[in-house]
Amino acid sequence: MNFQQKMEQYAELTVYVGLNVQKNQHVLINTTTDTIEFTRLVVKKAYEAGAKNVHVNYSDPVQTRTHYELAPDEAFTEFPEWSVVQRDEIIEKGGSFLWIDAEDPDLLTGIPAKRLSDSQKTAGKALERYRQAVGSDKVAWSIVAIPSGKWAAKVFPELEPEKQVEALWEAIFNTVRIGRGDAVSLWKQHIEFLEKRATQLNDHRFDKLHYTAPGTDLTIALPDRHIWMSGASKTPQGNPFIANMPTEEVYTVPLKNGADGVVRNTKPLVYQGNIIDGFTLTFEGGKIIKAQAEKGEELLREMISSDEGAAYLGEVALVPHQSPISDSGLLFFNTLFDENASNHLAIGDSYPTCYAGARDLERSQLAEIGLNTSIVHEDFMIGSAEMDIDGIKADGSKIPVFRKGNWAF
Amino acid sequence: MNFQQKMEQYAELTVYVGLNVQKNQHVLINTTTDTIEFTRLVVKKAYEAGAKNVHVNYSDPVQTRTHYELAPDEAFTEFPEWSVVQRDEIIEKGGSFLWIDAEDPDLLTGIPAKRLSDSQKTAGKALERYRQAVGSDKVAWSIVAIPSGKWAAKVFPELEPEKQVEALWEAIFNTVRIGRGDAVSLWKQHIEFLEKRATQLNDHRFDKLHYTAPGTDLTIALPDRHIWMSGASKTPQGNPFIANMPTEEVYTVPLKNGADGVVRNTKPLVYQGNIIDGFTLTFEGGKIIKAQAEKGEELLREMISSDEGAAYLGEVALVPHQSPISDSGLLFFNTLFDENASNHLAIGDSYPTCYAGARDLERSQLAEIGLNTSIVHEDFMIGSAEMDIDGIKADGSKIPVFRKGNWAF
Repeated sequence: MNFQQKMEQYAELTVYVGLNVQKNQHVLINTTTDTIEFTRLVVKKAYEAGAKNVHVNYSDPVQTRTHYELAPDEAFTEFPEWSVVQRDEIIEKGGSFLWIDAEDPDLLTGIPAKRLSDSQKTAGKALERYRQAVGSDKVAWSIVAIPSGKWAAKVFPELEPEKQVEALWEAIFNTVRIGRGDAVSLWKQHIEFLEKRATQLNDHRFDKLHYTAPGTDLTIALPDRHIWMSGASKTPQGNPFIANMPTEEVYTVPLKNGADGVVRNTKPLVYQGNIIDGFTLTFEGGKIIKAQAEKGEELLREMISSDEGAAYLGEVALVPHQSPISDSGLLFFNTLFDENASNHLAIGDSYPTCYAGARDLERSQLAEIGLNTSIVHEDFMIGSAEMDIDGIKADGSKIPVFRKGNWAF
Repeated sequence: MNFQQKMEQYAELTVYVGLNVQKNQHVLINTTTDTIEFTRLVVKKAYEAGAKNVHVNYSDPVQTRTHYELAPDEAFTEFPEWSVVQRDEIIEKGGSFLWIDAEDPDLLTGIPAKRLSDSQKTAGKALERYRQAVGSDKVAWSIVAIPSGKWAAKVFPELEPEKQVEALWEAIFNTVRIGRGDAVSLWKQHIEFLEKRATQLNDHRFDKLHYTAPGTDLTIALPDRHIWMSGASKTPQGNPFIANMPTEEVYTVPLKNGADGVVRNTKPLVYQGNIIDGFTLTFEGGKIIKAQAEKGEELLREMISSDEGAAYLGEVALVPHQSPISDSGLLFFNTLFDENASNHLAIGDSYPTCYAGARDLERSQLAEIGLNTSIVHEDFMIGSAEMDIDGIKADGSKIPVFRKGNWAF
């Protein structure tokens, strides 16, 4: 299979498996000017799949940085109404959302943390309805990624520039099971495997998880009615979609007040075009009461003070240390990949689909049943070959879930 | 001056003279993915000029064609609400609109005319408030153009592909007075010259214009209170801007019912990604009663039946045959340039700024004073070295305005 064929297959996977475009559907793609060639393919295949209208919002990374450098402070506390309306229209029309990511991990290095967090908070508040629709799978959505020059240079600094993008393409194709035959059936098998894992965990009905690793000793309580999910989602109309490609995780929702202890990250977190790394979070009654980082500490603190819920957990996800992405040995500097190579947690908003009967609840009702809500939802990686996890049941009995970074059952 | 310096100067001209960006202003740029490098420069300079927020809507020509080829028919009679809101927000906030054009003149060749006209009509209706704001200069707006590969190939088919874009850049720089010293003062002088022409014409108070040339014998009545304008416009707050760069025309508004006779085009018209050429329009009581074209006749007919006003004139513009653009001898296949090398008319909507006291009138009130209104406004070129124009006064006296394509006074 040559490069062009692989790219075609990736576009098809995106349209037919990731987003699962329906006849007469509106599709909104958010991407950057680094992805034009691939996005053209996706647009074409989306129309071939029957889409009624495919709109692409292209942002340009260079212009984005110019904006953060030169716009006046007030620009970061204003959010355009049209951008809210655009998303609402897609939701009302039963459309779907696709992100084609190619982010330079260092895009916004050196921009004052206050600008980044103002911007994040402003967008987070303005887009509440939309975040709720996406977070509860009321619409189909998917995130895929392709290389940009700057991102590839970060992942493969040792290669000649002209080889970097090629290498990142190959690495990405590998993570999304392209080049090994019929990618669509490979994905089907893979999702079945993840679903099986989720079922096993659901059968255990753990009350708590206890994580231990160098720098980590953390207990996280799970709500009674938690559900472990795989990356396979369904709209209320029953259309399956895959929200992240690749996906290797099974995940659920924690009790907002149920985290106690300390956790250390194991892979850098790229947040708002900046790297945060070497960080330790200390939890008490669910809340982060201490946050330290070797790199990006100011931005980390801004992030967890975005709102009240940004200092609590919203997701617990399990990924074995031996997984296809992890086995590549690559650090992608991109959460979509790095989180699928490692156990991870997310601060901020909860997925109501991970709690039986919560899917249609309002945000305020989620709080009543003990789930966290926030304008942010940010995954961070904590897994390693040295991580053990025990599942603790209501009767106090312990069952090994992970040993030395891998599934214990 | 090297290429990079010329491009910088063009971007400055766009920001400071064309759009005249104000402090804390919102700027909306509509352009295509062919212009990214130049658009980055414009964005940077707009922020340097004090803009609060610069948003760029990038459309991709390849995706646009895919849409016209593959989307279902219903897609062309739907217009997204967000796109209306986006423009309304800019108007409400006193922002400005910039187009950076790089259109492939053949982009939509072969697409059924019905799709093109449905699309045009749908957008025209949905964007009425916006068209009114722009058409009456309630906001600052400007159109500039830069080469794309396909456009350059159309203008310079005889050159090697790698020379075509370069040649079109140089041709454009020339039309916008870049490379001959301080472009800003050159523009100031140029606008003063055009304003003088407009004053002369306004002093004449012509009742009618009579055009004769091979294939053309047309009389156009002007309303009593018509105003000849130059390309220099002003917002209601008094901020000057130049709506078209280049601009060589002086223009006014005709009486809706006042055109009689026949007119033949002299340069191809690019409309909706298609070329219409070799056409003759016959007017009776202002209305086009016959339209024939050697090329693009179906699309021409669709265009003039977009709505009732699309079959009447909305603009009369005078440009001498000897003008910088015309002297280049180039056919640009782009109205922004070709209309500024030739006398032209427009079918469709009128500019209320060309009628004393009409600027703030509603569309329905414009009809009452005899001006045409329409969802389209499309310029077409009729000038040549063989064109004579007489100005006819209310008392029947005739004054030569153009002889052999050039000013007679």
